[in-house]
Amino acid sequence: MGSGLNGAAIALPLDEIVAGLRVARERWRTSQQRLQEVGGRELPSREALREIVDRLSGVLFPMRLGPPDLRHESEDYYIGHTLDAALQSLLQQVRLELRYQARHDAHRQRDVEARALDLVRSFGGALPAIRVLLDSDVLAAYRGDPAARSVDEVLLCYPGVLAMIHHRLAHQLYLLGVPLLARLVAESAHAQTGIDIHPGARIGPGFFIDHGTGVVIGETAEIGRDVRVYQAVTLGAKRFVTDEDGQLHKGGARHPIVEDGVVIYAGATILGRVTIGQGSTIGGNVWLTRSVPSGSRITQAQSREDVREDSLVAPLA
Amino acid sequence: MGSGLNGAAIALPLDEIVAGLRVARERWRTSQQRLQEVGGRELPSREALREIVDRLSGVLFPMRLGPPDLRHESEDYYIGHTLDAALQSLLQQVRLELRYQARHDAHRQRDVEARALDLVRSFGGALPAIRVLLDSDVLAAYRGDPAARSVDEVLLCYPGVLAMIHHRLAHQLYLLGVPLLARLVAESAHAQTGIDIHPGARIGPGFFIDHGTGVVIGETAEIGRDVRVYQAVTLGAKRFVTDEDGQLHKGGARHPIVEDGVVIYAGATILGRVTIGQGSTIGGNVWLTRSVPSGSRITQAQSREDVREDSLVAPLA
Amino acid sequence: MGSGLNGAAIALPLDEIVAGLRVARERWRTSQQRLQEVGGRELPSREALREIVDRLSGVLFPMRLGPPDLRHESEDYYIGHTLDAALQSLLQQVRLELRYQARHDAHRQRDVEARALDLVRSFGGALPAIRVLLDSDVLAAYRGDPAARSVDEVLLCYPGVLAMIHHRLAHQLYLLGVPLLARLVAESAHAQTGIDIHPGARIGPGFFIDHGTGVVIGETAEIGRDVRVYQAVTLGAKRFVTDEDGQLHKGGARHPIVEDGVVIYAGATILGRVTIGQGSTIGGNVWLTRSVPSGSRITQAQSREDVREDSLVAPLA
Amino acid sequence: MGSGLNGAAIALPLDEIVAGLRVARERWRTSQQRLQEVGGRELPSREALREIVDRLSGVLFPMRLGPPDLRHESEDYYIGHTLDAALQSLLQQVRLELRYQARHDAHRQRDVEARALDLVRSFGGALPAIRVLLDSDVLAAYRGDPAARSVDEVLLCYPGVLAMIHHRLAHQLYLLGVPLLARLVAESAHAQTGIDIHPGARIGPGFFIDHGTGVVIGETAEIGRDVRVYQAVTLGAKRFVTDEDGQLHKGGARHPIVEDGVVIYAGATILGRVTIGQGSTIGGNVWLTRSVPSGSRITQAQSREDVREDSLVAPLA
Amino acid sequence: MGSGLNGAAIALPLDEIVAGLRVARERWRTSQQRLQEVGGRELPSREALREIVDRLSGVLFPMRLGPPDLRHESEDYYIGHTLDAALQSLLQQVRLELRYQARHDAHRQRDVEARALDLVRSFGGALPAIRVLLDSDVLAAYRGDPAARSVDEVLLCYPGVLAMIHHRLAHQLYLLGVPLLARLVAESAHAQTGIDIHPGARIGPGFFIDHGTGVVIGETAEIGRDVRVYQAVTLGAKRFVTDEDGQLHKGGARHPIVEDGVVIYAGATILGRVTIGQGSTIGGNVWLTRSVPSGSRITQAQSREDVREDSLVAPLA
Amino acid sequence: MGSGLNGAAIALPLDEIVAGLRVARERWRTSQQRLQEVGGRELPSREALREIVDRLSGVLFPMRLGPPDLRHESEDYYIGHTLDAALQSLLQQVRLELRYQARHDAHRQRDVEARALDLVRSFGGALPAIRVLLDSDVLAAYRGDPAARSVDEVLLCYPGVLAMIHHRLAHQLYLLGVPLLARLVAESAHAQTGIDIHPGARIGPGFFIDHGTGVVIGETAEIGRDVRVYQAVTLGAKRFVTDEDGQLHKGGARHPIVEDGVVIYAGATILGRVTIGQGSTIGGNVWLTRSVPSGSRITQAQSREDVREDSLVAPLA
Repeated sequence: MGSGLNGAAIALPLDEIVAGLRVARERWRTSQQRLQEVGGRELPSREALREIVDRLSGVLFPMRLGPPDLRHESEDYYIGHTLDAALQSLLQQVRLELRYQARHDAHRQRDVEARALDLVRSFGGALPAIRVLLDSDVLAAYRGDPAARSVDEVLLCYPGVLAMIHHRLAHQLYLLGVPLLARLVAESAHAQTGIDIHPGARIGPGFFIDHGTGVVIGETAEIGRDVRVYQAVTLGAKRFVTDEDGQLHKGGARHPIVEDGVVIYAGATILGRVTIGQGSTIGGNVWLTRSVPSGSRITQAQSREDVREDSLVAPLA
Repeated sequence: MGSGLNGAAIALPLDEIVAGLRVARERWRTSQQRLQEVGGRELPSREALREIVDRLSGVLFPMRLGPPDLRHESEDYYIGHTLDAALQSLLQQVRLELRYQARHDAHRQRDVEARALDLVRSFGGALPAIRVLLDSDVLAAYRGDPAARSVDEVLLCYPGVLAMIHHRLAHQLYLLGVPLLARLVAESAHAQTGIDIHPGARIGPGFFIDHGTGVVIGETAEIGRDVRVYQAVTLGAKRFVTDEDGQLHKGGARHPIVEDGVVIYAGATILGRVTIGQGSTIGGNVWLTRSVPSGSRITQAQSREDVREDSLVAPLA
Repeated sequence: MGSGLNGAAIALPLDEIVAGLRVARERWRTSQQRLQEVGGRELPSREALREIVDRLSGVLFPMRLGPPDLRHESEDYYIGHTLDAALQSLLQQVRLELRYQARHDAHRQRDVEARALDLVRSFGGALPAIRVLLDSDVLAAYRGDPAARSVDEVLLCYPGVLAMIHHRLAHQLYLLGVPLLARLVAESAHAQTGIDIHPGARIGPGFFIDHGTGVVIGETAEIGRDVRVYQAVTLGAKRFVTDEDGQLHKGGARHPIVEDGVVIYAGATILGRVTIGQGSTIGGNVWLTRSVPSGSRITQAQSREDVREDSLVAPLA
Repeated sequence: MGSGLNGAAIALPLDEIVAGLRVARERWRTSQQRLQEVGGRELPSREALREIVDRLSGVLFPMRLGPPDLRHESEDYYIGHTLDAALQSLLQQVRLELRYQARHDAHRQRDVEARALDLVRSFGGALPAIRVLLDSDVLAAYRGDPAARSVDEVLLCYPGVLAMIHHRLAHQLYLLGVPLLARLVAESAHAQTGIDIHPGARIGPGFFIDHGTGVVIGETAEIGRDVRVYQAVTLGAKRFVTDEDGQLHKGGARHPIVEDGVVIYAGATILGRVTIGQGSTIGGNVWLTRSVPSGSRITQAQSREDVREDSLVAPLA
Repeated sequence: MGSGLNGAAIALPLDEIVAGLRVARERWRTSQQRLQEVGGRELPSREALREIVDRLSGVLFPMRLGPPDLRHESEDYYIGHTLDAALQSLLQQVRLELRYQARHDAHRQRDVEARALDLVRSFGGALPAIRVLLDSDVLAAYRGDPAARSVDEVLLCYPGVLAMIHHRLAHQLYLLGVPLLARLVAESAHAQTGIDIHPGARIGPGFFIDHGTGVVIGETAEIGRDVRVYQAVTLGAKRFVTDEDGQLHKGGARHPIVEDGVVIYAGATILGRVTIGQGSTIGGNVWLTRSVPSGSRITQAQSREDVREDSLVAPLA
Repeated sequence: MGSGLNGAAIALPLDEIVAGLRVARERWRTSQQRLQEVGGRELPSREALREIVDRLSGVLFPMRLGPPDLRHESEDYYIGHTLDAALQSLLQQVRLELRYQARHDAHRQRDVEARALDLVRSFGGALPAIRVLLDSDVLAAYRGDPAARSVDEVLLCYPGVLAMIHHRLAHQLYLLGVPLLARLVAESAHAQTGIDIHPGARIGPGFFIDHGTGVVIGETAEIGRDVRVYQAVTLGAKRFVTDEDGQLHKGGARHPIVEDGVVIYAGATILGRVTIGQGSTIGGNVWLTRSVPSGSRITQAQSREDVREDSLVAPLA
């Protein structure tokens, strides 16, 4: 008696805990001035987005990220079928975000359906161009890493490439006006790779991130062609600007511009709306809060001066 | 012949490998002075804890982390049912840890059942308060990040919030005397977010971690209200103290105290039982091994002096 | 009308997107001078390797990483059965990589089957020795962390131990000539722990990584016995050597040698083919690009000199 | 070459088969005078109905057909949550059938949503009465079978009870105007038990089917209280009536009326709109096409006469 | 508004239905004089039994009903591991039934654990003998069916063999005193094959059921060696005996004895404690309620006489 | 002690049972004169065939048996992709059966691969014609059942249609020389519907089976166009012919020929190589062992004579 699988669990005061949680939720909803809510959950789903990205990865690279038993002869069948499933599922998520955006605006609620369709159509139409960009990233990784044996290996193994597949899809969603979906895609990559790229960041072709853990790239960063970045690099903002009444000033370009062909070694921190000129090299662990001209080679020794000058900037992204 | 699915696998010397592994296990058990063990596995399960936390996340935030088709009308049914399942499952894991703790002590074995029940009841009773704390963390994230568009987005996307849901549950388990379960929960968050908070750390309301990858917070750290921390921040111990015979001295407060309203920027390292006074700002990449008064603004230039003074401390957590 | 689950999705231009993607693939295949490919996917599978490692983890530590309901009495049955499944599955993956390696060489294609079998047999035969090495790593973690309560806890919770289980299996695959499989195993650990160890790295017994997020260890690193390493440590290469026509010079020992008993604290960066002498201690955040003799204690203050001297090295792994 | 997992599959003429199937579908659609169809599948789903019935079984008998770890304390939470999920899912299926019914009638399409809601509400409201009826069936089975040891065993094991759970739910759907959903539920029982009860059949409380394989009960059958039926019993129609132009005359009462307390032994066939008077016993393998008064005991010998008289009737249901 | 996935479901009166169901349950519990029940479900699980039988099928015939990738070299590992899992799971189910049996008897509750263990040990010990019996059944099927091409085909395809695997396991459980578990196993076969053999039936080696749908064999039937039976054969009881107060008289031998080498063709019905003498043949659709001597050949014409004599018997099993 | 989840399971004598089973297997293998077997399982898989049929059902009727979210626009993509997967999987099963057929004939082993490919190609090529046949069966069901409301309902709900989908696929496999695969498909239908059609039976277009439980149709039966059959109908063989030494005489036409437009009511049994002339009606429960001319209407009364004449035939299929 009292032993065994479900033993003495009798006295769990479920009703009490359920009531306690209800009170806590009501307190929150009151504090947030939420009207008495009815109906279902109105938010997009992390898991749904994850599955959509998985499917789109297969659509983009069928023979390498598609199902193991796929064959060239049936590639297009697989792609068409999977694409349809992915886009239909995306359509539902887009509806959820658009409705959520318009939750206080009955007028905008009305055209959610039409806008969702337009958006998903545009997104689908952008996929071939995204594939071309990703091919350039794969090639960049292959050329940039002495250990890489083939482009196939790069696509299969490199977390930096996984992060870029997510980013290029997320960026498209961001541009099309569904930033929450974009963010969910970006955070999925972050969780898998430790690479945290804001979906707003604009990144040219041939981008390569090696190792990657700890990389942070901010919303308004702009990165040119053939840039290479190593683990723990931050392209961040300086301290936030607050307006008179202490509110954070949101928006506005506040992250670095990195021009074509720049290489940034591990642990370097570049902050603020500065420009790293074309072809520059930024050494490991460098701390940089000013622009540098094309062809610069910045080392820690140099950057220490920078630290003294600019002591209270803070690496944010 | 020899081709095909299961081809020439005939000669796998399974018996030999199995025997080799048995020898290795026996060697280990002997070296660890384990008695001839019988019976089943006595350890809690990573997967079980992961599922428990998933369920409790739904219980705490039903409309945002619960099932996608949940509706307000049935919230309490969902919560009650899921809570029951989660707590029953937790009860089994608690039994496993308590039995494990008491494995050399027949006396303590006897009251495992009663203690397990008390513990799970207390844990369940703490959930409403945990929800209130987490609400404050969500608000802090929303207020602290210029990119955040709504509290819902924060709860859905931010790894720092995910880490805090885990931490506040893990900390409760830690306080109730099941540190191994607590650790499993913490490591689950670590794996998903790159944020490594020891379940022993005491953290006040309104805590916000941005980006988060590489954050390490040690067991005896104490953090006040409304503290903000960025990626790669370490709140660690200095070198361990060893006693005369070279054994590590375990326990004892050895991590920083961070007072209310402090902000610590990315990459900063704060080591030892020092106090960061209320409202201070610690700049990016700062290395700090001494206390600073309220309202301090510490930058790298200043902290470099600190490095010279205190050259052999080592960032541990 | 127009509302509901599958609403107005009618106009998705699937054919057009499928065609666009086909053009993009052909462009890529042409640019890569790939012959008209036929047949199935020829690459190993991430998921398959992940499952193989899961099974082998259970085979190596049946009572702690095997199924929750395993019992001592049936350990060997479980091991034999699981080992068989894992090795048969590995055999398929090995075939895929060997065929891929030999894809331009009809001669080598012919003995893929025989080589695959030899390789898997060798791999299986190495498992008992791998278990012995891993036991030493577990003990090192237990002894090295003041918070560890038991070796069981260490094996269950510590990401550093998880990373080492992967590494010791991956390293064996690397030695046996299937570097792509090895890399897939290593990246699986990287994704779960944030610890990035190249499968080529040679690591002695009793290796302990604490916290671990951000650790990077390069391909030709050599690490002795009883070495301890903390989060965000890099054992990397300096800048790559390029030959006259700008091609990366691949291969060649280019990462540090770390002798027995060395401790390297969090955030330290050690670059190039330097030797850290036996029993040395490298402080937190140290930047080191030269060899140090046995028993050295290196701190940031000292290493800053080093930075000035050697300004354009870059932490790579 | 040509051996192995995906061997020589190259030449599968997928395009040709796909085209052949398209032609066959078009031929069918033309022959059925279907307009060029667009949009998604409009039919309810077998699997969805199966899951709904599973959930409702748990809702009706939580401690015996609910989840194995259910506890009395949380019964209502389980029921509320599961009921909500089941009814929401049913609502979707009801919409599909109502839309399908109205597919040629734009007018009726318009109120599908309102009717679906009403219907599901009515259905939910009928569940307590269905439970009461099913309790009477369970008791009847317990009392009618000398081998039954407890009512719990009956509910857990008896295919006749499983069939009645399905029937009482299906009959309710039939009454509410969704005969296709009702039929899907009935066929699910048929597949599991070999018992084929048309959802239109009206069956009083305390109905017991023993063994059950081969039982067929037709659409307009009416069965009183406390009736008992054994395997391979048919309550069917005689030959269908066709009208002048040879079309089947659909509808109309054409199956037997079985009054209270009747017992019908295995293999008996009763055909047409006949009445089996209260308390009668129909022997095994009897063939009966005429009414019998209350208290009759019909045997094969007697029924043979019946056969001669009525030679071309045919057992249909 | 009101459209879409979770549309107008708002008004589902969950609370009301839940309350209605609670009343219905209470009514039932009162009518059944059940004390206020607490704690968890005490009944065995259909699904658990199904999984146990699946595992035991693999254990008994590893190369034909075990996992598709099993190999001779690892047969014993597979068997040992699977057997352990199956018997541990069976042990839990046995505990549940024994506790249920003793639910009104505190004294018997006490030794449930010891009896459960004994029972499972005995059951495990009987498996080799069960395999030998099943081999005889497989051979009988192979020899008895002109369409059978190999014993492997028989084991893989024949529902009669599937039914006998279940029966021989169920009969063992029945003999060991867990009739509810036995019944669950039998009903699982019934659902899959339409063959309904009571677990109490005693059946000699070399038993073959062809086609099988509709076969019913009662609890006290006794069947000799090398008997063959076709679809829709009933070995049943006559009408139940009721005692003075109308209660069914339970127990007592009431089904046929079928001696060695008998063949019973499709649709035959044999009722009551009669004996079918060795080597007899019973023709299709025969109705038989009397014993026949060895070597009889019974046809419909003859059995019609039987019908006239014995007009109110009824085929029960 | 002794209580709890894995309680007193210690003493399970696994080794002993495993050894006992090994002895039983060896005894069997010896008795069957099986050589010492090595390698893997050589038999096709029930589950694999079931999945293949599920996929082909979707391929044949995409909008009604395909995935619930399928849309007309993407039908061909779905079909091509699913067909490829189904046929590749079928190819593996065909290889297994062909190798098994040739297990004693090294010569035939050699061309297994080529024959398997030819066979699967032929099978794929036959699918459009199979769809056309099935359309005729669906129409027949719709026209033959007064309760049917639409062809869609028929396809979705009717077990007779499910059985015919299986049969038409199984028959094709039978014709192509893989009778074991054919049988597995047929038995899958049998298990789901209680309808047992041997894959060898030749059945014309427009075949309709109503209710279906207990129907048995033998290997050499030949059925014309537009035949209708009800539950429990047998088209069987008479007693098997044995040759001089008592061996069953296998093969040879031994089941009925049923000409165009015949209707056979429930429970009728027709045995032997007799011909039922065009347009005949066979009444319920009729027992028939002789041919009848076109346009016959056979009733029980008439067929009883038949019984007397032909007393020892037995319904086999």
